[in-house]
Amino acid sequence: MPHIQLLNDQLPGIVGLLDYRRETAQPLSALAEILLRGDSTLSSGEREMIASYVSFKNECHFCHSSHGAAAAAHLNKDANFLDDIKLGFVKTPVSAKLRALLNIAAHVQQGGKKVTEADVAAARKEGATDREIHDTVLIAAAFCMYNRYVDGLGTWAPPGNDAYMPMGERLAKEGYMGY
Amino acid sequence: MPHIQLLNDQLPGIVGLLDYRRETAQPLSALAEILLRGDSTLSSGEREMIASYVSFKNECHFCHSSHGAAAAAHLNKDANFLDDIKLGFVKTPVSAKLRALLNIAAHVQQGGKKVTEADVAAARKEGATDREIHDTVLIAAAFCMYNRYVDGLGTWAPPGNDAYMPMGERLAKEGYMGY
Repeated sequence: MPHIQLLNDQLPGIVGLLDYRRETAQPLSALAEILLRGDSTLSSGEREMIASYVSFKNECHFCHSSHGAAAAAHLNKDANFLDDIKLGFVKTPVSAKLRALLNIAAHVQQGGKKVTEADVAAARKEGATDREIHDTVLIAAAFCMYNRYVDGLGTWAPPGNDAYMPMGERLAKEGYMGY
Repeated sequence: MPHIQLLNDQLPGIVGLLDYRRETAQPLSALAEILLRGDSTLSSGEREMIASYVSFKNECHFCHSSHGAAAAAHLNKDANFLDDIKLGFVKTPVSAKLRALLNIAAHVQQGGKKVTEADVAAARKEGATDREIHDTVLIAAAFCMYNRYVDGLGTWAPPGNDAYMPMGERLAKEGYMGY
């Protein structure tokens, strides 16, 4: 049960929170829209993979599943893709550059100081630009916020993978400004 | 040295990052403005204390110091106040309600699922409202983002407390939308 009074059964995960406080919903949604769907040399599918991967590491079921489903929608994958995110992409072909960016994101999840010069050098060696490194760090950092927001207020979320697939389709097509 | 090319020696901590990517700077700044200076039954001083306390726990020197200095400016404290934040406010009188909210914030810093029903009940017992609990969780979560952003990109920040006092004055008076 959520720690505060929310319309959380109709509006699971972060959606009930965005509905509860419209003023903070605006920058929170705008940040997700820019980071995940804005102009970038990383595809939206790749950026949603980073978001979902960090959310899994933060044990945030709602964010892992909804952004995993958004990645699946961008990449034409089925619901099993959400389980492969949990495994660190063993069945999904991942470029060497994205693999190096996922490593940076995993270190951001542990704490900002955990990102090493070697992590960054490895990503550069695979062709990552300053802007891609910047956005990877900020996506990972932002999900350390969204995940804590969603779970720190005890929100409810549907359990299985399948429940998230229509949400992922909608997020991939329509984005984050609709709440 | 920062992991990417920034004007970080003139613009320390997050400021160089806000300058580097103006599009994400907008929602990042708007969120801080609403959470720390917007309409609330918690004073800006109290909210900056939460922000600085969480930042210290995340070992983010720039955010701990700049938001500690902003809290000091709101509360008419000197630079020693920044050290008391590190100690968990042993010399500063803190209301029972704020103490309970700081406890919630400390648990958010560890992870969203670390916030317990007992933490929330203890804050309610001291008079905390839904909105105050919501905002405490979101401030703590947001600083888990800002802290990781600042340190995950290896930004430079001045070492001592004194360097932050004019910055704290400016943040307290003029806010977060000026970058």
